[in-house]
Amino acid sequence: MKRQVRVGMVGYKFMGKAHSHAYRDLPFFFEPEAVPVLQAVAGRDRDGVEAAANQLGWASTETDWRRLIERDDIDLIDIVTPNHLHAEIAIAAAEAGKHILCEKPLALTVAEARRMARAAEQAGTVHMVCHNYRFAPAVQFAKKLIDDGRLGRIYHIRAQYLQDWIMDPNFPLVWRQRKEVTGSGALGDIGAHILDLARFLVGEFTAVTGMMETFIKERPQAEDDVRGEVDVDDATAFLARFENGAMGVFEATRFAGGNRNGNRFEINGEKGSIRWDLENMNNLEVYLEEDEKGMQGFRTIHCTEEVHPYAGAYWPPGHIIGYEHTFINLFSELMKGIAKGYSPSPNFADGLRNQMVLEGVERSAQSGGWIEISED
Amino acid sequence: MKRQVRVGMVGYKFMGKAHSHAYRDLPFFFEPEAVPVLQAVAGRDRDGVEAAANQLGWASTETDWRRLIERDDIDLIDIVTPNHLHAEIAIAAAEAGKHILCEKPLALTVAEARRMARAAEQAGTVHMVCHNYRFAPAVQFAKKLIDDGRLGRIYHIRAQYLQDWIMDPNFPLVWRQRKEVTGSGALGDIGAHILDLARFLVGEFTAVTGMMETFIKERPQAEDDVRGEVDVDDATAFLARFENGAMGVFEATRFAGGNRNGNRFEINGEKGSIRWDLENMNNLEVYLEEDEKGMQGFRTIHCTEEVHPYAGAYWPPGHIIGYEHTFINLFSELMKGIAKGYSPSPNFADGLRNQMVLEGVERSAQSGGWIEISED
Amino acid sequence: MKRQVRVGMVGYKFMGKAHSHAYRDLPFFFEPEAVPVLQAVAGRDRDGVEAAANQLGWASTETDWRRLIERDDIDLIDIVTPNHLHAEIAIAAAEAGKHILCEKPLALTVAEARRMARAAEQAGTVHMVCHNYRFAPAVQFAKKLIDDGRLGRIYHIRAQYLQDWIMDPNFPLVWRQRKEVTGSGALGDIGAHILDLARFLVGEFTAVTGMMETFIKERPQAEDDVRGEVDVDDATAFLARFENGAMGVFEATRFAGGNRNGNRFEINGEKGSIRWDLENMNNLEVYLEEDEKGMQGFRTIHCTEEVHPYAGAYWPPGHIIGYEHTFINLFSELMKGIAKGYSPSPNFADGLRNQMVLEGVERSAQSGGWIEISED
Amino acid sequence: MKRQVRVGMVGYKFMGKAHSHAYRDLPFFFEPEAVPVLQAVAGRDRDGVEAAANQLGWASTETDWRRLIERDDIDLIDIVTPNHLHAEIAIAAAEAGKHILCEKPLALTVAEARRMARAAEQAGTVHMVCHNYRFAPAVQFAKKLIDDGRLGRIYHIRAQYLQDWIMDPNFPLVWRQRKEVTGSGALGDIGAHILDLARFLVGEFTAVTGMMETFIKERPQAEDDVRGEVDVDDATAFLARFENGAMGVFEATRFAGGNRNGNRFEINGEKGSIRWDLENMNNLEVYLEEDEKGMQGFRTIHCTEEVHPYAGAYWPPGHIIGYEHTFINLFSELMKGIAKGYSPSPNFADGLRNQMVLEGVERSAQSGGWIEISED
Repeated sequence: MKRQVRVGMVGYKFMGKAHSHAYRDLPFFFEPEAVPVLQAVAGRDRDGVEAAANQLGWASTETDWRRLIERDDIDLIDIVTPNHLHAEIAIAAAEAGKHILCEKPLALTVAEARRMARAAEQAGTVHMVCHNYRFAPAVQFAKKLIDDGRLGRIYHIRAQYLQDWIMDPNFPLVWRQRKEVTGSGALGDIGAHILDLARFLVGEFTAVTGMMETFIKERPQAEDDVRGEVDVDDATAFLARFENGAMGVFEATRFAGGNRNGNRFEINGEKGSIRWDLENMNNLEVYLEEDEKGMQGFRTIHCTEEVHPYAGAYWPPGHIIGYEHTFINLFSELMKGIAKGYSPSPNFADGLRNQMVLEGVERSAQSGGWIEISED
Repeated sequence: MKRQVRVGMVGYKFMGKAHSHAYRDLPFFFEPEAVPVLQAVAGRDRDGVEAAANQLGWASTETDWRRLIERDDIDLIDIVTPNHLHAEIAIAAAEAGKHILCEKPLALTVAEARRMARAAEQAGTVHMVCHNYRFAPAVQFAKKLIDDGRLGRIYHIRAQYLQDWIMDPNFPLVWRQRKEVTGSGALGDIGAHILDLARFLVGEFTAVTGMMETFIKERPQAEDDVRGEVDVDDATAFLARFENGAMGVFEATRFAGGNRNGNRFEINGEKGSIRWDLENMNNLEVYLEEDEKGMQGFRTIHCTEEVHPYAGAYWPPGHIIGYEHTFINLFSELMKGIAKGYSPSPNFADGLRNQMVLEGVERSAQSGGWIEISED
Repeated sequence: MKRQVRVGMVGYKFMGKAHSHAYRDLPFFFEPEAVPVLQAVAGRDRDGVEAAANQLGWASTETDWRRLIERDDIDLIDIVTPNHLHAEIAIAAAEAGKHILCEKPLALTVAEARRMARAAEQAGTVHMVCHNYRFAPAVQFAKKLIDDGRLGRIYHIRAQYLQDWIMDPNFPLVWRQRKEVTGSGALGDIGAHILDLARFLVGEFTAVTGMMETFIKERPQAEDDVRGEVDVDDATAFLARFENGAMGVFEATRFAGGNRNGNRFEINGEKGSIRWDLENMNNLEVYLEEDEKGMQGFRTIHCTEEVHPYAGAYWPPGHIIGYEHTFINLFSELMKGIAKGYSPSPNFADGLRNQMVLEGVERSAQSGGWIEISED
Repeated sequence: MKRQVRVGMVGYKFMGKAHSHAYRDLPFFFEPEAVPVLQAVAGRDRDGVEAAANQLGWASTETDWRRLIERDDIDLIDIVTPNHLHAEIAIAAAEAGKHILCEKPLALTVAEARRMARAAEQAGTVHMVCHNYRFAPAVQFAKKLIDDGRLGRIYHIRAQYLQDWIMDPNFPLVWRQRKEVTGSGALGDIGAHILDLARFLVGEFTAVTGMMETFIKERPQAEDDVRGEVDVDDATAFLARFENGAMGVFEATRFAGGNRNGNRFEINGEKGSIRWDLENMNNLEVYLEEDEKGMQGFRTIHCTEEVHPYAGAYWPPGHIIGYEHTFINLFSELMKGIAKGYSPSPNFADGLRNQMVLEGVERSAQSGGWIEISED
């Protein structure tokens, strides 16, 4: 009988659905050493959490996340709440000896993130941050190419996360636009993703300088039809330097009309270049300088073959997978970590480092100068 | 308590995996009126079928499909065997009063397909053929545009299903290349899919003329290292006329290097055109003649929004789905049909019609002339 | 002093403009052994031909093409008239010892084309047919790859020439839609181009079967506001077999909305595949089976480098050329042929062979069966 | 008889070829009010300049540009020399009452550019800077859409000019990499182009902050096989703010492998977005928020129709033009300006403004802070 990992999830909206699905599908596609069990889901609204448990397949519910942490029959706490609750829940979970999976960004501040990382480290439990886009087969394959030296020294990364879902001035204030709940706007929500991809593929940031903008400064509030102030960024752009000498150009915005979910990057190295775009996430474009003269050009590699990371778990070549599979792949690593007793990357140390860059960008946008990302 | 539909599946390889997954995921994404239960799976090899049942999540196994049909606790027989078994199993299932889902192509011959359609009709049970590509949101949206008259009178369809998995002459003879098991080669396997898409989007065929080719005429046989004759087509192309006056150009091949699974079509009408490609299956390209002068061009519509058929069941706009979701969508229709007592299209009548075109193409390739597709 | 080739051009509309420009630009980009001189242009309408001569840069005019052929100061007759005049002019030019460049298709019928080819052969002068698309650098590079064996044995060509300029039923009857003037419609006009590309890249046709359609059967006549019958095809599709065993699927239509000038092909061989599209004519997509596993995919090669045929005559890598340059490249071959005394391909023998396929397609469309393309 | 504009061109390499060609082709495609005459070309190397004159079609030569300016039979001085000579020649030309066309960037410094702009203004002659990419039909059409309010308030521009021609460390030091001759590296050479496009399409810059990098700091010197220091940037990136509140993200690099000439931008506005890429320069991608729900997506508009700026001068829809036509279009404006007595944009005032941004970027890269672009 395989080891079971009994999960208690806090929150149940968009990310709760994505996580629930990944737990369910994991044993179908993979043969994990540890098998997740959808033990309990917590949410303040009893009707809401029960409906969610029913639809998403959880065995029981709680209306107080503290109760979830107290339960003996829970091994892993999965945090899919708004950002301002991450720290308190994660630290409590760590102190209770639970493994932890936390949605990104890890925290509201570097200070919080550092406390979380320390708590998890002291607890000695397994911890991960849910930067799922790393786990697209095409991105993992990009990583392999870079690690194998196929691109040589890295000169450039340019990455954009472009969305357009709040461009309508009448789109109401939601929690993702309120600083006390979310920390920052586009930066922390989607900028954190491309920043994680950059850390994964290029390496550590050493300095950043950025700009932030709120194009629509007031919005209707859903509750009571009054208008409220938007105190986070609609868009953020920043320049960066990396330890290995690479230059980075980053942009995260919710005001790029026509880009529903345009998470894309290009990396240029001494020997080759790669491009990726989430909207056609199964493809990786690769240029190799070593190709013979006249035959050089970006290849569109459909990363659905046995040799592409994780792809063999799914369908034959040419049969694409989608958004949800990035979670399944990440969860396969989490289960492996729990079975073997280590915290796979991206873990809380990655989340902390990510937070340091996010905070560096915010500080640079305020000061107008470059901010060093210190070694901690 | 919702109605349950207890499924017995015959076969468990590639299609068995796709179907099993779809049954499992259906209630998660949809709220179906009838809920499938993975009751039993049948296969001749006891070890094989038990391992499959375990991995895919079936409650019990049989080593003889006839036993499956005899069982009282099975409502729906799902046939994912090689093609030559479809008829016998489907007819037996119908006679036993079971609902039936059958993989494509429906049969080896029109005669078989006609017997199957009659048996199902007489039994009065629900029947479908698993032409899953119809159920990509982008294809369903294309159908809606056509039905709404957005393309006007249809002039052209050109459709290709291009693969490359058997180009290596040392790739062994598999059942999909043996006439007695499969009926035809590229034609029946992948040609049947684009033919179904054409019937769905453009309408009924009236006449065809085609050519078939076997480029590699002998291959190693896996079993015993001798070479065997390939007696089906590696590639088939055909011209067609439709009831509504449209012209069709079709090509199905397993010798189109670089096309892992290139199922694509373009349809041109009086008022607009559409293009679709399975490898980026979430996109539909649409051209509208009504767009103002100078602003005309193919739009790339990312069919992941609430308004796109089935898309709302999954993730927010811009988050793509993949191959497996075409099955989930089809199965949602099947469950609706079972709950309400009708056979959603594509059902056995569609499968028969499809078979008539397949056979017409084969006969035209032999005779060198056009074959009328009779009204039956 | 370089040899001069004094050109007399018959006709001066769209093709007259393209040819005039190519003569003018040729010595700028190339260093041709023979230099064209724009000596005289002929047209029936005195005002029209004089205005054209003035705008396009011709030194003198004639209102009767026969007079042009009689002139001693003309070395090369360039025929850009409607198709029904090609034969008479070309034969007269040959008999007068002139070199000849003729627009495509060479003639209205095979019989005409054969007389033209014989006349030119007997005259011993240089002759070419203006199939300009062969001369896009990307197409020439494709030819080189095929000749070098990079694709291996060819299995497939699928080629389409898709336009949409007469879809409006009120678009008037023009000469390109009148059989006595043009021979056929989409087939001879644009089908002839893809047929030439197929002969150039894949080899000789051995048999064809086709279908032709006139979607709009009556149109306004520009002259007198009455409606006239359209007696040529709006669209033609055909299947083909080649001497080397390849299969071909072809389609030429003026009813493919959104395709302004969509001349595109894909060729699949044993070792690789290529794709080309006139609308982005500087690119060639190449797939090589020899690429390492996991790294296979179509490369987009921007054929603007020194190593790409003709590209070095123009601009640095990445600076694209356009439609008009295909003529300049062809004309560079014509001048080389005249300087050295041979008729570069595509010459009248190619034009005849092309005509045989065109006529084969028409006959097959009438008979409903395959037509062999005899060796002559 | 049309007015003639007798041109004297200083320099004759890559840009000299592009300009010469544009002068020659202009009267063929357009009917300009003033017609350029290729009167004289100047260069220090007598053999070189005479060979160029012969190949490019100039009537006479000079070995000293000062002599060219002294000649009475020259109306327009065209400066295609390395950048460090622009100012001296342009000022001398202005003082001699000549019209002036100057390659970009206008000067080495703002101070120089300002002197040039003043000299031209005082002389009252016509002046332009050769920012040719503005004149691609797709870019002009983009401008029209923006001016017509089709994008609404502009939120973002992200523009990249990516090249890869000096990535090989053994590529020798050329003038474009030497500060005293070129001013800056990637920034002034290609960054100046995207900066001009941004000014043209979005408006005036108000502040910038940038970073510059020299990846290969020493290179062989062609002359004498010793290595020399590279004292300009291989790559520059910068953030920007615009008068209208838009955010800009820019990157110019010669180290982006696989990008031969990747000049591309995306602009997002309140009501729509546009994208353009020089490598497929005939296309403009346009997204309109006003499109009906479900039908929204980027359209690929092939800007080759009569309604697209300048396109009508060339070929029918779907027949693409290339790099060289951007010069022809610009030159048509220059001739119009000379005929009517005004300096079309981009003129020296634009060149000055461009230089101010270039210098701002350099200064910000040194200081690490934002630099305001003053109103002058």
